[in-house]
Formats: sequence, structure tokens, C-alpha cells
Amino acid sequence: MVLANWAVSLEELPPSTRKAAVRSLYNYIGCNIGGSNHPTVMKAHTALAPLFGRDSCTLLGNGSRSDLQHAALLNGIASHVHDYDDTHLATIIHPTGPVASALLAFAEFQAPIKGEDLLLALVAGIEASCKLGLAVWPEHYDIGWHITSTTGSIGAAVAVGKLMRLSEVQMAHAIGIAAVQVVGLREMFGSDTKSFHPGRAASSGIVAALLAREGYTSSETALEAKRGWANVVAGGGTPRLDELLNGLGKTWEIETNSFKPFPCGIVCHPAIDAAIHCHEELTQTHGLIPREVTRVSLKVHPLVVELTSKRKPRDGLEGKFSVFHGCAVGLLYGQAGPAQYADEVVTSAEVINVRDRVEITADPTLAADEAYLSLTHLKGIELGRHVEHAIGSSHVPMTDEQLTSKFVDQVSLVMGEEAATKASAAAWGIGDVEDVASIVREFSSGVTSS
Amino acid sequence: MVLANWAVSLEELPPSTRKAAVRSLYNYIGCNIGGSNHPTVMKAHTALAPLFGRDSCTLLGNGSRSDLQHAALLNGIASHVHDYDDTHLATIIHPTGPVASALLAFAEFQAPIKGEDLLLALVAGIEASCKLGLAVWPEHYDIGWHITSTTGSIGAAVAVGKLMRLSEVQMAHAIGIAAVQVVGLREMFGSDTKSFHPGRAASSGIVAALLAREGYTSSETALEAKRGWANVVAGGGTPRLDELLNGLGKTWEIETNSFKPFPCGIVCHPAIDAAIHCHEELTQTHGLIPREVTRVSLKVHPLVVELTSKRKPRDGLEGKFSVFHGCAVGLLYGQAGPAQYADEVVTSAEVINVRDRVEITADPTLAADEAYLSLTHLKGIELGRHVEHAIGSSHVPMTDEQLTSKFVDQVSLVMGEEAATKASAAAWGIGDVEDVASIVREFSSGVTSS
Repeated sequence: MVLANWAVSLEELPPSTRKAAVRSLYNYIGCNIGGSNHPTVMKAHTALAPLFGRDSCTLLGNGSRSDLQHAALLNGIASHVHDYDDTHLATIIHPTGPVASALLAFAEFQAPIKGEDLLLALVAGIEASCKLGLAVWPEHYDIGWHITSTTGSIGAAVAVGKLMRLSEVQMAHAIGIAAVQVVGLREMFGSDTKSFHPGRAASSGIVAALLAREGYTSSETALEAKRGWANVVAGGGTPRLDELLNGLGKTWEIETNSFKPFPCGIVCHPAIDAAIHCHEELTQTHGLIPREVTRVSLKVHPLVVELTSKRKPRDGLEGKFSVFHGCAVGLLYGQAGPAQYADEVVTSAEVINVRDRVEITADPTLAADEAYLSLTHLKGIELGRHVEHAIGSSHVPMTDEQLTSKFVDQVSLVMGEEAATKASAAAWGIGDVEDVASIVREFSSGVTSS
Repeated sequence: MVLANWAVSLEELPPSTRKAAVRSLYNYIGCNIGGSNHPTVMKAHTALAPLFGRDSCTLLGNGSRSDLQHAALLNGIASHVHDYDDTHLATIIHPTGPVASALLAFAEFQAPIKGEDLLLALVAGIEASCKLGLAVWPEHYDIGWHITSTTGSIGAAVAVGKLMRLSEVQMAHAIGIAAVQVVGLREMFGSDTKSFHPGRAASSGIVAALLAREGYTSSETALEAKRGWANVVAGGGTPRLDELLNGLGKTWEIETNSFKPFPCGIVCHPAIDAAIHCHEELTQTHGLIPREVTRVSLKVHPLVVELTSKRKPRDGLEGKFSVFHGCAVGLLYGQAGPAQYADEVVTSAEVINVRDRVEITADPTLAADEAYLSLTHLKGIELGRHVEHAIGSSHVPMTDEQLTSKFVDQVSLVMGEEAATKASAAAWGIGDVEDVASIVREFSSGVTSS
């Protein structure tokens, strides 16, 4: 009941928390639209269309609509499909996807919902997800759960329950109904199902809140009971649930939320950051052609090797789990955005050629946001770069301007630049509107774009 | 891939397996209709109605229809809400609920489906659920998972995938997408959410099969991988996946499926069986009034005490977890059917009065299907009864005639006796029809009943 009580009584956000919520939601909207025309989303849309109900909610970037549950599911898939969404660094949860996918759909379903209430609900949901994640970290993740979605269904239920103004007991039941829907295995990384996880978490949270509002009962100790969520999913660890839930509203997890400059596993980012720096030095300082590198050596944190050492990725999705690919496109193009993770780039001869020359060494003395890169060029030049803290890490957070570039870049690929710029302005202002639904429609489609 | 390969290539059932499938499906249909007007189902129906899509599928016993996904979900809830469904004794999985709820809905969605194909798919799904359950038993259950639904989503996906005639690879992906949706915690026992579990498993299996048919990918080693389903949900045990999956088609789990004579936790059944015998002896042999018992002593297997020792159940749902209640109604009325688990019976003074006199002792030397009951009557009579194997156990399976009585009894409460008798005949014949949809509509509603 600790979480339910806190969530129901949350009434105001400190300014820094509110700001973090706006940035998280803004980044989410860009990723959602940016991912909306990905084949993974299209397949899910086609497959599940026979189940659709009343089209009350927007599928961002898609130009069409769906029912509350499937809008949450499909938007959740889209938001994660480029692996470009946010990261709560202490747990590597991507917290906004499940929560915001449920919330934006519900804000249309139950319009009008004020922007300020949406932010409050978003924070309630994200704090829930991240505190629960911390309580079972790291054993829960180590054993194989995808922590984004296993905590996300509960976060989504809390958030939607908050917008519904559930009572404390109803909120406890919503949490319980969400807690029995444990979604997401790491075994699916590299397949379409990874993105299904946050989508399903969003829709599970909605189902939980709807049921609880109607008086459907679960347990009031669903999280903390002997056979409750935390103990069952702890993966052999000892959950620190009391400690973490008592910190609700004292420390704000959302303020530590970070944003990815590159659409791939965050552990790759220091290496990519180094590669982009080397691209600039090669091309601008030395006037050299990057594809003519003859040797590339990376020293990285061991987790990079464990998680992203796909030597020969076969498509964009596998490219996200290949530090070799990220390093190659950073060197070749000075960029590693969604365009550089397109299937045809991952399979291009030019990229493969550079990728095959990248050697990697795990160095346990390095930090997770640190990397060394050294290379030799055909013309005899040798370069090196040490990235102490990668861009997007807690030491070098992305600025609002960088977030805006990221948003416009990826949304332009779907809607064109003019519509992307308008959507960006709308997204920055979402916390201030009287009716969120009125603004969500602005994210609908690129049909009006140039 | 072992499970996917087996399921796709399954073509014929041994006669004894087919017979077990017919009995399982028959019992399921009775339980589904019998539970259809329960408040738990009604609440879920009202709560989720805003999500409903095209009403292509029957809500059994309800008189109305819903979309494929929600029909599976609501029928799944109804089939389990009286705790009257079947039991695979080696794992205490209730295997038919998730699988048949998905299948009957899909048979209408994709009509015409032959009864023979339905039985084949049902067996594929149930074998999948039960073999997986055995592979992680008992640690998986001990730690707190509700094994019916954690295995049921996979069973449902296999079954629906079989009706869809998925390829082996598609079937493997369907299994994977189902495997990431791990539903059900024992903490929810005694609340509405317990019945949500098999319902959600059924709908999750449908979503998995629909996605896989469209080429949505997961992992081809979702069950057996290091961080796959079996290892992640093993609860600290060592999964015996290879051993169990290699037994597919050699031993048939469905042939060990058992059916409950009483709508409550199966561990209570020996005690209730003994109580009913004592009712008969008191009233018929001695002409005594059962409510005048002054002392009732039970000796039971320790699990009875662990799972069903609710001393003062407050409603029908809690009554199911009270061996005291089961014993009291058995003694008083010589019956323990759905009518004896109505809220007003659980709270009646007459029942409470006898219930409070029941004393219970755990005896680890007893078998799970064994019980001793002794009592003293106001008139000075003392009686005892030893039940060596309870009715419904593997030693004393319910006959087809007893299953028919159970079906008609519970369905009559919803549809009236005439419609119940017609539905019973239709349900026995479901394996022989050309179009299952034509017969499912017969289970729709009691509007034509007396």
C-alpha cells in the first residue's frame, strides 16, 4: 500500500522534477513518431488490427487511430523500436515508454486531461517503475528479465490510475493486477519482441487500472507479500522494497533519466562518441577519407562486449547490438542516427568493410560511459581518442537544444521537416495545455508535411 | 524448437487421448457457462467493454458477444471463477481454461473450424502447458507463480497457432511471444485477480499467435535459452526442459487430467467427500439432524492446512479456501456444489455454527487425496469415515455420467435445466462437428430456457 498511498496523494512536483518530466515526455514523443513507420510496428499493426475497438486514440506518426489498449501497445512498440528512448541509468530501465504510451492514449480516451495532470501522472508512474526496478536490481535483470517492461506495467497502471483519480484501495488493486502481468525476457533482444515488451506493459497497465476502477480486486500487498511481485521476480536476490518505496517523493528517479544521442544500446555510446570525434579529426584536420582506415582498436567496459558484440549484424535491429556497427558508421559518416541503422546501411559493403577492421578489448578498469579508440589510416596517420564520459551520460546530459535536434531529425524522416518542427514546438508545450488530446492529434501524421 | 516442431507435426490422437480431450473440453464448457454470471466476470466485462472490438465471438452463458481477444479473456475468467475447473494432478495446473478459451473464440473468429481440428489443437496446447509445468515444478509454484497461467499463455499460443497452421518457425516465434507474457501470482488467490490469470493467459496466447503469423519475430530458443522462459521462471530450481519436451507425444499429460466434483481447492476434496458420506449416514442410517453435530475432527494432508485454512471466510470466494466451509456444507446438506458456495450460504448462521465446530489436524502420513473425519452428534452418536481416495482423484475419476450431472447442475443455475440439457448434449458432440462456431452459439445464453 506504500506505493498506492504515495501515488494517490502526490499533488505537486518540484520545478526540477517537472522539468525532467517535460524532457522525458518530449524525448518519448520524438522516439514514438520516429519509430512509427518501422517494419516491426507495421507488422504488429497488421497482425492486431482484427482486434481493434473504437478508434478513440492516436497512433503517433501513423496517420490512423486505434482503441485505447492497442494505441498504447503500438505506440509503446514504436517508442522503443529504434532503441533510442530514455534510460534510467541506475537500472537501465527505459521508463517513459510504458508509462507515456498508456497515458497519452488515456488522455485522448478520457479527454479533457490537463497537461499539468499528465505530467503529475507521468512522474508517479516513472517513480513507481524505477523504485521497483532499484528494489530488485541487479539480480532481476541478471537472471534475464527485461526490467523496462517488468516494472513498466506497474508504472503504467499507477500513472493511468492517477489520471482516473482512483482511491488508495483501487490504486492498490490496480498495482496488483499490473503486478501479475510480468512482461519481458532479455532473450528477445535483437528480435521484434523486444519492442513488444514496453507496448504490452503499457496496455497491461491500462487493463489493470480499468479493472480496478470497476472494483475488481487483487491483493493490497501485491508487491511486498511473501509471494508477491518483488520476491517472485527477484531472481535470487533480496528485494529492498521497503527501503526504496520509503524514498518515494524524497529522491526523484526521473531527474536521473538520461537521453540517448544514438539509437542503440547505451553501452555502445562511448565508443560511438569516440568514433564521431575521430571522423571529424580525420576529415577536418587531416582531410582524409574515413573508409580508408586500416585498423581500429576499441577498449571498452566489459558489458559492451557482453551485450553488443554482434560481429556480423544482418539488419538494422541486429546493428543496434553491434558496437562494431556503431563504431563503423560513426567513423564513416560522423553520425549514428536512425538513418545509419537502416537495414541497407547495415548491409552495405562500405560499412561492412570498416566494421570488419574494428577490434575490441574489454577493460574492467574502464567506467561504463568511458571508451578508448585508436586507429591507423591508409595514409599512415594514427589517431586516438579517450572519451571519459559519453554524451548523454549523467556527466554530459543532452541539452534541450540537442534533444530538439534529435527530435526533429528522427521525426523529419517520418513527417518531413516542417511538420517535425511544428510537432517539436507542440511537444515542448504539452505540460501547459488544457486538453492534452488537442495536442496529441498534432503528432498524428505527416500527411500535411512537405 | 522442440515444442514447435512437435506441435506443428502432430496429426492424430490415440483414442484414449482423444477421449480425454473431449472430457476436458466438456468439463470446461460447463465451468465456463457455470461461471459466466459471477460478479467477478461481470465486473471485468463492464470494465473492459470500452476496449471491445468487433463482436465476432461468443461470451459463453452471457447472451452477448465480444472480440476475439476479450472473448478469450472473459471466458477464461468465467471458466476458473468457481475453482471448479480441471486439474493436472502432477502440477496442479488447470490446463483447459487458458487453452480452450483461446481456441473456442478463435474457432468462431476463423470459422469454419472442424471439431476434430479443435481437439487436436486443444491437446497440443495442453501438452505444451503441462510439460512446461512439469519442467519447472515444484520450485516455480513454490516461489509464488500461478502455474496455470504462466504455462497457459504458451499453451494457448501453441493451440491457436496449430489452428492457424503456422510453420515451425512461426510456431517457435508464437511460443516466444507468449513466453514473455508471464501471468499470475499466487498472492492473488482469494481475489478476483486469480481468475483473471487464465483469462489473460488465453488472450496473451492469441496475441502471440496473431503476431507470429504476421512474421513478428521472437527467439527460436525462447524456452530453453540461458535467459529463456524456463531458467528465468524456475524459482531457483533446475528446469528439466529437455527431458520433459522429449516426452511430448510419448506420454500424454491430458490423460491424467482430473475433474473436480466440488468447486473449491482440490486439496479440500477428501474432507468434503468424507463429510458427504457422514451426512448420508447421519440422515439415512440414524435419522438425525446434521446441524446438531457437537464435534467434528478432520485429519488431512498438511497442504490442506497450508492452502485452505480460512477459519472465517467472508464470502463465496473465500469459502473456496476454507476446508471448514467445505466440510460444514457437506455435513449439513450432503452437497458442495456451486449453490453451497454462494455468498449467502457462506455467511449463514447455520453454516457458521457447524463450521466453528470443525477441528483440523495436519498428518504428513496421509496422501493428498486421503482424509479421516470423525464426529459426535448431540444425540450421543459418534461416526467416523476414512476416505482413502477422494472422488475425482486419479484412483476414482469422475465418470461421464458424473461429469454430465456436474455440467447440468451448474449450467442450469445460469440457463435453466432445459437449455442446460441441450447444451450438455452439444458439448459432448463438439469433436464431431464440421463447424465449431455453429455449436459454440448454443452455449451462448439462457434466454430460451424455462
